[in-house]
Amino acid sequence: MVGKYRADHQWTSVNKTLREIRKLQDDRRYRDGREAFFIEGVRNFVQASDNNFDWVVIVYSEKLLVVPLARKLVRQIRRKGVPTVRISPEKFRSISQMKRASGVCAIVRQKWTDLISTKPDTGLCWVILGHVRFPGNFGTLIRTSEAIGGAGFILLDRGVDPFAPVTVRATMGALFRQQFIRTTYRTLRDWLCQHDGHVIGASPDGISSFHQYNFPPKTLLFLGEERQGLTSQQRLMCDAIVQIPMVGLADSLNLGVAGSLLMYEVFRGRNG
Amino acid sequence: MVGKYRADHQWTSVNKTLREIRKLQDDRRYRDGREAFFIEGVRNFVQASDNNFDWVVIVYSEKLLVVPLARKLVRQIRRKGVPTVRISPEKFRSISQMKRASGVCAIVRQKWTDLISTKPDTGLCWVILGHVRFPGNFGTLIRTSEAIGGAGFILLDRGVDPFAPVTVRATMGALFRQQFIRTTYRTLRDWLCQHDGHVIGASPDGISSFHQYNFPPKTLLFLGEERQGLTSQQRLMCDAIVQIPMVGLADSLNLGVAGSLLMYEVFRGRNG
Repeated sequence: MVGKYRADHQWTSVNKTLREIRKLQDDRRYRDGREAFFIEGVRNFVQASDNNFDWVVIVYSEKLLVVPLARKLVRQIRRKGVPTVRISPEKFRSISQMKRASGVCAIVRQKWTDLISTKPDTGLCWVILGHVRFPGNFGTLIRTSEAIGGAGFILLDRGVDPFAPVTVRATMGALFRQQFIRTTYRTLRDWLCQHDGHVIGASPDGISSFHQYNFPPKTLLFLGEERQGLTSQQRLMCDAIVQIPMVGLADSLNLGVAGSLLMYEVFRGRNG
Repeated sequence: MVGKYRADHQWTSVNKTLREIRKLQDDRRYRDGREAFFIEGVRNFVQASDNNFDWVVIVYSEKLLVVPLARKLVRQIRRKGVPTVRISPEKFRSISQMKRASGVCAIVRQKWTDLISTKPDTGLCWVILGHVRFPGNFGTLIRTSEAIGGAGFILLDRGVDPFAPVTVRATMGALFRQQFIRTTYRTLRDWLCQHDGHVIGASPDGISSFHQYNFPPKTLLFLGEERQGLTSQQRLMCDAIVQIPMVGLADSLNLGVAGSLLMYEVFRGRNG
């Protein structure tokens, strides 16, 4: 398996750099092994800098990168000894996944939080996820969590990757200010017991409507997968299950919407 | 410009049928001219039938279509004189836009509601849209509107197409039970005056939080475009502007999320 980038990794060949980026874009296992990910665009570039993410390499096109702030930032970061690779607009477009290529992208080290170093009352609430089918939905959830002042996401059994390109894009920069924890069911259960966390799940068969439910302090929201919802193992971890009322023949909501409704309900409870 | 399908349109050539489908998938103008759209999958097929959409042609693969209910439905509809075209699994997959090809798709006539035939208090509320950048967001909004018992969508100046394939897919079948109206700013203004409708917009500079606001009867929610929000013309139509509170450095939410939060707030006001 491929390992982390070493500090002395050489970025002299443009083509090798582009191949490396494509692998990080396309291959989750490769991202996991490298413990790095691909970011693109001025907004993400500035956010990564503001939130002290570690740069592996910065790739830019002098011609495409016209935002003065971003150009200055590239120079500042290069002066600190971070490798930078200058490429042509054509080559930049060949790796860009945005409609309009901004001229700056980078490989950045993944940042993970340890479960044992944190507590359930960090931020407004945590969100626990097992598996998510559509990476864009996960990105939407990250964006909403940032908007309500949520702490971040506890991810079980490697079922989901916050650093997938579609997810990163959908967060609109919120990714860099949210915490991500990877753990197992057993470790999470022990941590919840120790810290008295309350896990609230959502399911159409929940007893109370989320509008009527008083979310306790130290709430952690547990969201199930798009089609199957919470598994029986996941339901066992919940202290309560609430439902989002629906009328007519509707039987489900988009996962990003359902999770956001719950997060804003926790927010409402704390902020009157 | 291409016109509507005539009742005696011939579907004898498989390749011509597939070309027709591809044009409807890819080209909004072509869809507009034909006043028809492409649907796929057992869920959408059954929903279109249950909600009395008019079939233009049904295309299926005997081998791929294994759900007995859907097979029976194909036979029933054929008996009523609707053209059906049987194709091979390979050809079916060549037009399918789903991960797993279900074996049934169709061209269906678009269904529009006239503004003058309806009122602001039809359903729980209406949603007004000008332009939407990402068709998936519109689909998510349609799905939520169905879940709260909303009437549907008033679409201004052809800025958005409910029958785009990405939108149709994201509605998860809700499309067939929601109403769609196309109109102009001027006509909508007259209709609102006449029927005493209340237009509530959303913007970060809104005076009251949507949590504190009492949505009046005959509420119509006006949602702006993803990046620009409501234009000044659109703001002029609003009787009130509410904001969705955000903390930290977050500056916006996904449009599907923002609209869904507002719709569920109207729902909460009506259902205690």
